[in-house]
Amino acid sequence: MISAEDVNGIVLYKDQDHSFIWLGADPEAGSGVVQTNQYLIIDHGRGILLDPGGIHLFARVVATASRYISIDRIDSIFFSHQDPDVSSGIALWLGITRAKIYVSSLWLRFLPHFGIVDQSRVVGIEDFGPSLKLQSGGALRFIPAHFLHSTGNFTAFDERSGILFTGDIGAAIFPPGKETVFVGDFDAHLPLIEGFHKRYMASGKAAAKWVRMVSALSPKMLAPQHGAVYKDASASRFLDWFSKLECGIDLIDTIYKV
Amino acid sequence: MISAEDVNGIVLYKDQDHSFIWLGADPEAGSGVVQTNQYLIIDHGRGILLDPGGIHLFARVVATASRYISIDRIDSIFFSHQDPDVSSGIALWLGITRAKIYVSSLWLRFLPHFGIVDQSRVVGIEDFGPSLKLQSGGALRFIPAHFLHSTGNFTAFDERSGILFTGDIGAAIFPPGKETVFVGDFDAHLPLIEGFHKRYMASGKAAAKWVRMVSALSPKMLAPQHGAVYKDASASRFLDWFSKLECGIDLIDTIYKV
Repeated sequence: MISAEDVNGIVLYKDQDHSFIWLGADPEAGSGVVQTNQYLIIDHGRGILLDPGGIHLFARVVATASRYISIDRIDSIFFSHQDPDVSSGIALWLGITRAKIYVSSLWLRFLPHFGIVDQSRVVGIEDFGPSLKLQSGGALRFIPAHFLHSTGNFTAFDERSGILFTGDIGAAIFPPGKETVFVGDFDAHLPLIEGFHKRYMASGKAAAKWVRMVSALSPKMLAPQHGAVYKDASASRFLDWFSKLECGIDLIDTIYKV
Repeated sequence: MISAEDVNGIVLYKDQDHSFIWLGADPEAGSGVVQTNQYLIIDHGRGILLDPGGIHLFARVVATASRYISIDRIDSIFFSHQDPDVSSGIALWLGITRAKIYVSSLWLRFLPHFGIVDQSRVVGIEDFGPSLKLQSGGALRFIPAHFLHSTGNFTAFDERSGILFTGDIGAAIFPPGKETVFVGDFDAHLPLIEGFHKRYMASGKAAAKWVRMVSALSPKMLAPQHGAVYKDASASRFLDWFSKLECGIDLIDTIYKV
């Protein structure tokens, strides 16, 4: 259960120039709609939103984000991939900010199907994953996570805080009302993540490749789009588990038989 | 170029009880938004829409479909997967019809992020792919196409007409203004499909598996969500090519290097 004082967000990292904020709990969790996390980075007084979510969360996310920053100071919005829970609010966000949207170049031609979108404000991230330089001197590095699960998929590493936003990787599906902000015991958490990762992640080869890349960055926390944040031991336990997972194509004969 | 007389649709199959209709060309093709095809099956006077598309096409698709059937006679809507160009119009379609939505059970919890959705009207298709019985005696068979590209993805075989709706499989990206309704020469068509299939389709193993399943049905046409319809020789040429394709995970070292 997430406590009442945390429901409007928790600052996961903060220094003089830079903060990384979890934007609170979704009160609709438990109603059959997958619960989502949104995150806000504030760097030198300018905002970056990570996977701000779909149409039905828009009002709540605007309200929560505005407790930390004036909405017109949000310059950048990162979408890990094209799913509705990640990005269907795109037209609304373009309407109330002057932000640029960063998303895999694979989805540039698909996003306008969410509604009217000014394509000059959508920046395609190339497959290898470039970086977004921040005023404080660090960068938000777009780390490729293709096929995990989307074919054009990115995670994002905030160098200053050491927090890795992992999108759907690390996602947990909690029983209603049992959500927590942080992962406690990894072994107890495993049953909440195992089924999702085996079925939605397309290949163990891609998983191992991603773990190799992100381990080199020594992330302090893993912040997923669904479920709880991994820190300390649970972060390394998760990476170790995921690097060896058989999933998706590896198990295709158990999904359907020909 | 699609002729003016075809722009409002072409009947691909028709008998006394049953028809399969391509719902015309998207006048926005060429503006940087991926062009999409919608299809309508009419069986015993009741309608089934296949991938009716995103918000920005809604008005056109309603208008075109209503040339063939009264909108309130549409009972079923099939979504091949969760992408915005396929399904972001869900709330609008639920609003103007009493139709049930059929989509992979993997996306049930995600679709409400497109907006307000009455979940009692959304039916999850289980991974192995059941069938929708039709009044004329045949069925619309949901053929699994997981990981091609979506992790929970279906194609749909209309037994009566012998037409296989292939979703993103077989998609072509035409140069603006060069769209055709049918594939002419397969070799000339190949450059329009090759790049898309290599990058968006997650694995050759999944492709070969799908081809094995659908070849057993001897489809008369392959009707994709983007690009042109394959019939006769081009359908078998496509299946043969796709069954041997290396794509996605098979080529991951060319997409990014660690």
